[in-house]
Amino acid sequence: MPSRVKLGVIGAGSATFSVGVVKDICLQESLAGSHVTLMDVNPDRLEPMLRFGERYARELGADVTFDMTTEREEALREADFVLNTAQYGGHDFVEGLRAWTEEQGYYRGFRINDVLNIRVMLSVARDMERLCPDAWLIQAGNPVFEGCTAMTRETGIKVCGICHGHHGYRELAETIGLDPDRVTAQAVGFNHCIWLTHFEYEGGDALPLIDEWIAEKSEQYWREHRSEYWDNQMAKAAIELYRLAGLFPIGDTTRRGGWWFHTSLETKKRWYGEELGGFDSEIGWGVYLRGLDEEVGHIHAAVSDSKAKLTEIFRPEPTGEQHFPLIDALVHDNRVELQVNVPNRGAIEGIPDDVVVEVPAMCSARGIQPYHVGALPELLMVSVLRPRLLEAERTISLSVHPDSRMLLAMILDDHRTKSYEQAVQFGRDLLARPGLEEVAEEMRRSRAGGGERGPGEFL
Amino acid sequence: MPSRVKLGVIGAGSATFSVGVVKDICLQESLAGSHVTLMDVNPDRLEPMLRFGERYARELGADVTFDMTTEREEALREADFVLNTAQYGGHDFVEGLRAWTEEQGYYRGFRINDVLNIRVMLSVARDMERLCPDAWLIQAGNPVFEGCTAMTRETGIKVCGICHGHHGYRELAETIGLDPDRVTAQAVGFNHCIWLTHFEYEGGDALPLIDEWIAEKSEQYWREHRSEYWDNQMAKAAIELYRLAGLFPIGDTTRRGGWWFHTSLETKKRWYGEELGGFDSEIGWGVYLRGLDEEVGHIHAAVSDSKAKLTEIFRPEPTGEQHFPLIDALVHDNRVELQVNVPNRGAIEGIPDDVVVEVPAMCSARGIQPYHVGALPELLMVSVLRPRLLEAERTISLSVHPDSRMLLAMILDDHRTKSYEQAVQFGRDLLARPGLEEVAEEMRRSRAGGGERGPGEFL
Repeated sequence: MPSRVKLGVIGAGSATFSVGVVKDICLQESLAGSHVTLMDVNPDRLEPMLRFGERYARELGADVTFDMTTEREEALREADFVLNTAQYGGHDFVEGLRAWTEEQGYYRGFRINDVLNIRVMLSVARDMERLCPDAWLIQAGNPVFEGCTAMTRETGIKVCGICHGHHGYRELAETIGLDPDRVTAQAVGFNHCIWLTHFEYEGGDALPLIDEWIAEKSEQYWREHRSEYWDNQMAKAAIELYRLAGLFPIGDTTRRGGWWFHTSLETKKRWYGEELGGFDSEIGWGVYLRGLDEEVGHIHAAVSDSKAKLTEIFRPEPTGEQHFPLIDALVHDNRVELQVNVPNRGAIEGIPDDVVVEVPAMCSARGIQPYHVGALPELLMVSVLRPRLLEAERTISLSVHPDSRMLLAMILDDHRTKSYEQAVQFGRDLLARPGLEEVAEEMRRSRAGGGERGPGEFL
Repeated sequence: MPSRVKLGVIGAGSATFSVGVVKDICLQESLAGSHVTLMDVNPDRLEPMLRFGERYARELGADVTFDMTTEREEALREADFVLNTAQYGGHDFVEGLRAWTEEQGYYRGFRINDVLNIRVMLSVARDMERLCPDAWLIQAGNPVFEGCTAMTRETGIKVCGICHGHHGYRELAETIGLDPDRVTAQAVGFNHCIWLTHFEYEGGDALPLIDEWIAEKSEQYWREHRSEYWDNQMAKAAIELYRLAGLFPIGDTTRRGGWWFHTSLETKKRWYGEELGGFDSEIGWGVYLRGLDEEVGHIHAAVSDSKAKLTEIFRPEPTGEQHFPLIDALVHDNRVELQVNVPNRGAIEGIPDDVVVEVPAMCSARGIQPYHVGALPELLMVSVLRPRLLEAERTISLSVHPDSRMLLAMILDDHRTKSYEQAVQFGRDLLARPGLEEVAEEMRRSRAGGGERGPGEFL
């Protein structure tokens, strides 16, 4: 028997995301009778999505209703599930900040927008404590790792981060000539920093096949393969990370790697492919943004055309995203193994319990039960996961308790920072940027609030 | 009633250190009847120290006997205490390696000799497990933090690291105009990375007096003060670290700070004083090494002069080092508060139990009982202590299980490394240096030993 749920979608003005949500919930028959509240701060982006949802459900004959709001509280009140994909300021803000940051000598930007996004997440989770304390929060917007860890620590809300990056093992399988449907894989760590511990093909260990492919076929692949911007799983950088860390990096893990892959466009091209320099170069990212714009235009145009049949343009097939399988499992005990981001609680040895890790889990009416992973190799722990955790701890600390000294520590730790003076100046200028007002103000207030020692204000 | 102990001194060819040991044990009446075995791999440096010890005891009428050996086992067999001050290769080796490393673009060197020293420490502790499993190991040679942590993890030996750096609080007191004997202080963290949590003068909180001094007198101090090489406690770098971390850095903590204090001699001069550029610049360190040479020459000359009265040249006063107060406390229950480096076991919140921390402790026949410190400020933990611990974990891992990938991770993390290619080349060349043969060989063996995946040898 279907269960009606109330779902709040935060950041629903994101057209591609909301199209996926609409498709998936309309196709999930077990959720018939459910209601979706689409929320966004931007009504102009939101309104087409409401129309899309209503028409799509009608066309499919799906028993799902929609409404929209620019007031977050309305989306959260009495929600059973909250799906959060909001990004502070959206792409325009991020690109504006990035452009300015590049002028200061930080090629491709400095991750301060992570702090702003985490603060949005915390604010949503705190509202949920008041308005829907028993609801599950499914976090889709980035940074999933830091944000879910911060929300777990700072609120009592049940949080699960969801990402599709772990599917990268399928790309790996295909590239080395294996049928992805006959492969099983386990990649664990932190979101966007997951590493392949197991890889089986028809029941046998397929890890040696990766080594064979690298030895015999990788050079030819790199010579001949024309990669799309999203196509970084088998880039040279991935193989080099495998050499460095001892386990193969999966999904977005490859995009970040270390500072040394990202010192210039030339370097990026060497490691991520000659044409684009990977997803995150000015070229690759530009292609991505233009594609996104086109896709949004395409969606909005379809919605504007009252004669268009939306289910013909956007085929009624599940997206493959894990959001609704998760909701279905939690509500109906339709047991399913998903790749989740939840508090560690002993799953990975040597990681504190209140850090959110990405691991496989059994999802059911019992909740989310992460599989125990155990110890990971010392090399991976000490040279990759602990440094990544430390970076996250700084970002989380800066988000929860803004302190100019923490910001300065982050800037100083950045390999692109060449001197102390540069760091101080960049920190000061950064805090004066639009969007950072609240963070800067909290820094001033906390220093002025007493209890602080030392020679006064920093940045 | 005095207790005879057998004390083994490893690295006893270090003349200044051994003179201190001889003085302190001869003056410690509670240890009358004790025997000291001086051990060093270099008999030419060792032999004068044996003569010094025997003559000094005779002149004082102290009931202490000495012998010497170049065989480590002889110094450890049936020892009650082992004092280890050995440094791999001594100063000449370190300076040779430093000179080469500077040519590769790493100003003032790369800390690979820490790895070699930790391996010596581990080898001593493993020998102790066999030869004197109940003895206490008092670790004086550096790196105390990493070495003591590694020995605690890898062996069953009771280890305590001892350093005099925490006395820096006295220098701080004197500089700001307080009588150091009427000040109490607590500085905790890791060895050479300790931070002032408490500072009282005649029972009242004296921390605000530091802030006052900085605001009103520091500029004048820096203008007028002519610092000696060892004189870094009140350098500009110290005050800047205080601003950055929120607690005042004590002792050698100031010398390290962050990479940004050490980018060039000019930068060092700005932060540590115009004349010398601090203890660790080429100027300051040169003065230190020359002073050491002079002191050693002075000691050897005195020993060579059979008519010299050693107790007149080297006054029979306690050195102020904590080694013998500790031994006395452990043997005779002469309870004393000392600053020790021992496994954390809950003393500082958020630091794993198997990490050696520097904290005050009550020392007695019950053993070493660290004082519970509790939580330290989040800023200090996240921006200073955890990064320092991560660095230590890499060094320890590289020492215990040499792996070229871990070495590469350390090189890449170094702010002076400008590119991946530079890192790989530097790593390869470093492993080919004299002194690194054993480490390089272990790296090769462990990779060849199977179980390792990935595209083969790294450096």
